[in-house]
Amino acid sequence: MNPVSSSNQRFNVRSFLKQLIVGFMTEYETPKIVMVHSYSITTLLRFIQTILLLYSLCYLLIYRKGYQYQDTSLISSITIKVKGLGYIDTPNNDSYVFDGTDYIIPSSENNAVFIMTNFIETDQSRSTCLESASFKPAKCRNDGDCQNKPYMPDINGRWTGRCSLTSIIDMSNITTNISQQPYGLCEIQGWCPVEDDRKKSTVIREIPHFTIFIKNFIEFPTFNVKHKNMAGNLKPCVFHPKKNTDCPIFGLDYILEEAEKNETERQLMLLYGGVISVKLDWDCNLDRNIKLCKPVYTFDRLDTPFHEERFSIGFNFRFASHWKDNETYLRLLRKAYGLRFIVSVSGKAGKFDFITLTLNTGSLVGIFGLATFLCDYILLNLTEKASMYREQIFHRVNPKETRVDNAFELL
Amino acid sequence: MNPVSSSNQRFNVRSFLKQLIVGFMTEYETPKIVMVHSYSITTLLRFIQTILLLYSLCYLLIYRKGYQYQDTSLISSITIKVKGLGYIDTPNNDSYVFDGTDYIIPSSENNAVFIMTNFIETDQSRSTCLESASFKPAKCRNDGDCQNKPYMPDINGRWTGRCSLTSIIDMSNITTNISQQPYGLCEIQGWCPVEDDRKKSTVIREIPHFTIFIKNFIEFPTFNVKHKNMAGNLKPCVFHPKKNTDCPIFGLDYILEEAEKNETERQLMLLYGGVISVKLDWDCNLDRNIKLCKPVYTFDRLDTPFHEERFSIGFNFRFASHWKDNETYLRLLRKAYGLRFIVSVSGKAGKFDFITLTLNTGSLVGIFGLATFLCDYILLNLTEKASMYREQIFHRVNPKETRVDNAFELL
Amino acid sequence: MNPVSSSNQRFNVRSFLKQLIVGFMTEYETPKIVMVHSYSITTLLRFIQTILLLYSLCYLLIYRKGYQYQDTSLISSITIKVKGLGYIDTPNNDSYVFDGTDYIIPSSENNAVFIMTNFIETDQSRSTCLESASFKPAKCRNDGDCQNKPYMPDINGRWTGRCSLTSIIDMSNITTNISQQPYGLCEIQGWCPVEDDRKKSTVIREIPHFTIFIKNFIEFPTFNVKHKNMAGNLKPCVFHPKKNTDCPIFGLDYILEEAEKNETERQLMLLYGGVISVKLDWDCNLDRNIKLCKPVYTFDRLDTPFHEERFSIGFNFRFASHWKDNETYLRLLRKAYGLRFIVSVSGKAGKFDFITLTLNTGSLVGIFGLATFLCDYILLNLTEKASMYREQIFHRVNPKETRVDNAFELL
Repeated sequence: MNPVSSSNQRFNVRSFLKQLIVGFMTEYETPKIVMVHSYSITTLLRFIQTILLLYSLCYLLIYRKGYQYQDTSLISSITIKVKGLGYIDTPNNDSYVFDGTDYIIPSSENNAVFIMTNFIETDQSRSTCLESASFKPAKCRNDGDCQNKPYMPDINGRWTGRCSLTSIIDMSNITTNISQQPYGLCEIQGWCPVEDDRKKSTVIREIPHFTIFIKNFIEFPTFNVKHKNMAGNLKPCVFHPKKNTDCPIFGLDYILEEAEKNETERQLMLLYGGVISVKLDWDCNLDRNIKLCKPVYTFDRLDTPFHEERFSIGFNFRFASHWKDNETYLRLLRKAYGLRFIVSVSGKAGKFDFITLTLNTGSLVGIFGLATFLCDYILLNLTEKASMYREQIFHRVNPKETRVDNAFELL
Repeated sequence: MNPVSSSNQRFNVRSFLKQLIVGFMTEYETPKIVMVHSYSITTLLRFIQTILLLYSLCYLLIYRKGYQYQDTSLISSITIKVKGLGYIDTPNNDSYVFDGTDYIIPSSENNAVFIMTNFIETDQSRSTCLESASFKPAKCRNDGDCQNKPYMPDINGRWTGRCSLTSIIDMSNITTNISQQPYGLCEIQGWCPVEDDRKKSTVIREIPHFTIFIKNFIEFPTFNVKHKNMAGNLKPCVFHPKKNTDCPIFGLDYILEEAEKNETERQLMLLYGGVISVKLDWDCNLDRNIKLCKPVYTFDRLDTPFHEERFSIGFNFRFASHWKDNETYLRLLRKAYGLRFIVSVSGKAGKFDFITLTLNTGSLVGIFGLATFLCDYILLNLTEKASMYREQIFHRVNPKETRVDNAFELL
Repeated sequence: MNPVSSSNQRFNVRSFLKQLIVGFMTEYETPKIVMVHSYSITTLLRFIQTILLLYSLCYLLIYRKGYQYQDTSLISSITIKVKGLGYIDTPNNDSYVFDGTDYIIPSSENNAVFIMTNFIETDQSRSTCLESASFKPAKCRNDGDCQNKPYMPDINGRWTGRCSLTSIIDMSNITTNISQQPYGLCEIQGWCPVEDDRKKSTVIREIPHFTIFIKNFIEFPTFNVKHKNMAGNLKPCVFHPKKNTDCPIFGLDYILEEAEKNETERQLMLLYGGVISVKLDWDCNLDRNIKLCKPVYTFDRLDTPFHEERFSIGFNFRFASHWKDNETYLRLLRKAYGLRFIVSVSGKAGKFDFITLTLNTGSLVGIFGLATFLCDYILLNLTEKASMYREQIFHRVNPKETRVDNAFELL
C-alpha cells in the first residue's frame, strides 16, 4: 500500500490539504489510451466521423446557420394606404363614384383594412313596420301568432304583437310546403323599413384596379436593429413578382389572383366578401448589410371557399351614418360585403455569436462520441479477435483476489 | 527512444506526413477501461442510471415531448361577429331597439370588438354655454374668477371670461364647505350644451343574450401548417363548456360569468364598462391529425374591480355623428360605456424531428456522466479498498523519474 | 484465450444472458487514468479551467441568468385614453374647439390611436364639377382632350368628356413651359367640389398639451403570471423620466421630443402627420416580487424625416360624415393629417428552473473538455518529453503481432 494514502486515512488534515493542493497543481490526469492496429475498424470509424462531420458542417452550421444567434421575436408597425376610384351603376343609368372615403370602413385600422365591394343600402328611422319576409318566424295568420314570441337573436326589432295580412307577399321560395292560405308578416318596432336581403345589392366596379400600399416598420429588439420594407428612394411603382419585387404597392388584382386561383371564386369574393391574409416574412442575416434583407409577401384566402360551405360565408358587416332631421333620428344603414385584408408580420434574424457557435460545436462533439461508441461495440463484440482486444482494453480488478488479477495482467 | 519519433524531430516532413496518414487510417484509439468487480458500487451506479433514465424518458422525452421540434411563433387572423338585439326604455314609456350597427363601435376592429351597454347622449352645436357643474374650476362669483385661467385638460371648451350667476344650481354635493353665498358657473365657448355626467344614462337591455362568433385562422410558419377554430361542417350553435366545446359562438352571459364570478361586479360592468380578454391557446401535436388540435378559450377581466379602484374605472369613450343643418355643424355626442373584448391568440406546435431527438439524447447522455462521476468519487475515496483501486486505476508518470515509475507499475 | 468468451462464441444463450446480467450488476467500468507529474502542463490546464469557470459562472449563469427558464411569448392587451382640448382659428377671428371626439379617428382602435392635428375640410355632394387643378392629366384645351382617357388611380371622379375653358386658372406653378394659350380643366362626375390641396389647411392648436393614458395588461402564459403597468393605487399623474417613472400617462410634448429631436421636424409632423411607435418592453424576473417588474417605454418616429423623402411623406387619410338632406346625399370630407401612435409590447420573463440549470451546467461541462483536449495535445506533441508520455499513455495493440506488443509494454 502507498504510505501517502495511508496517512490520508489517519485524517492528518493539514498534510492532507497540502498534498491535495500540490497534487491539484502538479498531477495532470488523462485517460490511458489503447491503440489498436486495425485497418478495417479504423476506416469504419473515419468513415462514420467524416459523414457526421460533413452533415454537421453543411446542415447544422452552414444551412441552419449554427454560428448565428437567431431570434424570432420582432416588433412590427404597419400603415396601409389604398388608392383607386370605384363606381356604381344607379337605376337611372347614371353612375356614382366611390372613393377611398366611401369604400374603406372604418377609415383607419391597425394591421388591417376593409374594402367594400358590394352593399345593400337602407334608409331607416325608428318606427313600426313589417319584419323581413326572409325571417321565417315572422310568418303569421293572425295576431296571436305574433304574441308571446321568445327572444330571437336574428330579429330586426321588437314584436308589436300585430299580424299584417294586407301585405301578402310571395312566400313560395321560403315555405317548403305549398299552401293556399294567405300568410302575413308580424309587425315589429325598430329601425324601419327593415333591410331586405333579397333586394339587388350594389356592386362597386373597378376594384381590381385599386392599389394597396403597405408600409412595414420592424425592429428586432434582441439585436437592436430597425428596418422597413421601403427602399431609401421609393418612387411611385407597382409590385411585380419578377420585375419589381422591392415595391410595397400591390395591385388588388394581383393579390386576389395570388390568394385564390379560381376565377369563379374570385368573382364570388367580390360579391359576398372574403378575408385575405397578407403575410410579410422577414429572414434577416445581420452579418450582411441590413439593406439586403427584404420581406417575402404571401397572400392567402382565409374564408372557406363558397362551394364548400353554406354557413357564415364570405365577409360582411353593417355600419350606419346617423343624423337628425326635424327631431327625428335617421340613419343610412349599409350591409357591407367586401375584402378584409389582415396583415401579419413574422420573421427571424441571425447574427454571428461566439457563444452559440461554442455551444453548437460542443453538441456536435457529443454526436462524434456516437461513432466511437459504435466502433467500440463492433471491435469488442463482432470482430474475430474480439476476446484478445477485450483482454487488452479491459483491466480486471477484483477486490477479493487482487493479486490474481494483477498476475493475470502480467501474463 | 522510438527511432520513428526521433526522425519526426528531424522534421523529415514527407515520411512524417505518410506516417501520420497511415496512423490516422490504421490506429484505432479507445480508452483503456478498468473493470472493478464490486457488487455494491455497480448496483449504486445502475440504480442512479435507472432513475436518470426513467426521469429522462418519462419527463423530458415523453411529457415534455423531447422528440419534437417545438415552436411558439404563430400567425393569427381574427374576425368577430356579434349578434343580438338590445333595446332601451325611453322617457315616454316607449322603447327603442339597438341593433349591431348601433351598439358595435367602431363597426369593425382588428382583434377586438366593443359592445356599448350604456350611454349618455347629448345633441350639440358650436356656441357658448355654461361649463359643466361637475367641473370644479368652473365655479365663480364674478367675471374675474373666469379670466386668466390656465389650460386645463378636462375642460369642455374655452373660457369666454364671463360668469353666469343667473343659473345658480345646487352645488351642495360639490362644495365641501357650506356657503350661503350664491355660486355661478363660468361660460365656455365650444360644443354646447356640455355633456352632463349626472344625467341618468341609458342602459341597453338584453345584452347578456347576445352571441359573439370568433373566427380564428392560424398558421405555424415553421411547419407550414394552417388551421382554424371551426369544424369542417359548422352549423349554427352556441358554445357549452361540456356539451359543445367545438362551437366558436359564445353567449355573452357565459363570457361574463367566466370573466367575473361576482354578480354585483358583472352588473357594474354593464353599467360602467369593462375590458375582457378573450384568449385562444393552441397546443398542436402535428404528429397526429391536425383536426384533433383545438384551442382552449379563456376569458379574463382586465379592468380593476370597482370595489378596489376609484381612478379610471370601467371602460368608456366618446364618439359622435356629425352633420350639417342650415349651415350649422351639429353632432350627436355619445359617451359610450361598454364591454371591450380584446382577443389574443397564443400557441405552440410540435413535430417529430430527428435532429432535436439526437441533440436531446446527447444532452441526456451528458447527464449520465454525472452518475459515473459520482460513483468514481465514491469508489476512489469512500470505499474500504479505495487505495487499492487508486493504484489500479491511476498509472503515475513522473518525467523526472520515469524508470522508477515504470518499475513501480511492474511491482 | 479466455474460455468464458469462447463459450460466448458458441452462442449458449442462457449462460450468455446470465453472465451478461451478472456482469452488468457486478462489473464497474471506469477509464484507466494516467497521472503525469508535470507542474507546467497542470498549471496551464488549471488556468484555462479557471477562466472557463469564471466566464461560465459570471456570464452564462449570472449575467444571462442560466439558472432561469426564460420565455419571450407574451399576451398583451392595450387600452388608450387621450385627454385634452384643442382649438382652431376660423376665418372670422373666432375659434372652434376640438375635443377628443373630434380629433380621435376612429374613436377606438386596437393597439393604436390617431390624433388629428391638421385637416382640409370639403363639403361635398354628388354632381359634376371641374377636376382638381393640381391633377396634371386634367389639363385640356378642348373636349377631345377629355375623352378616351385611361383609368387613373388618383382621379377624383369619372371624366364626363367636357373641357371647361371658362374657369381659366393660374397654371404657372404647374406647367413648366410658358404657354400663352389658355388652359382649361376637364369636368368630372363625382363628389363635388373636389378637395383642393392648395387650400390652407386648418391646424389644431394645443396638441402638445394633450396627455395619453396607456393601460397595458400582460400575461406570460408559460408561467401563468399576469401583470399590468399601473400601480395598485394609481392617482392622476403625468410621466416624468426621473421624477415619476411609474405613471402610464404621457404628455404629448414629451412623446414628441423623445421620438424626434429636431424641433423643425416636430413642427412639420404636426402639420403633415407622422407615425410614432410606442414600445413597452418588459423584463420580468419572476424569482422576485412581480410588483418590481415595470416596463421601459420607448418612443420612436417611424415615418421618414421630411428632409430625406419626397414620396409619401407624413401620415394622412380621408374620412367623411355622411347625411341626407332633401333626398340628396351629402358628406363632409376631411383629409386628416395627424399623429398615429402604434403601441407594441415585447418582453421576457425568467424563473428558476432546475432542468434548465442542469442542462446548462451539462453544456458547460462539455466546454471544460476543450481545456483537457488542448492540454493533451500540448503534452503529447509539443513538450520535450512528448514521446515518453506517448509511450506511457498509449498502449499499442497489434492483432497480427500481439505477443510483440505485449512484450513491448513489458519493457
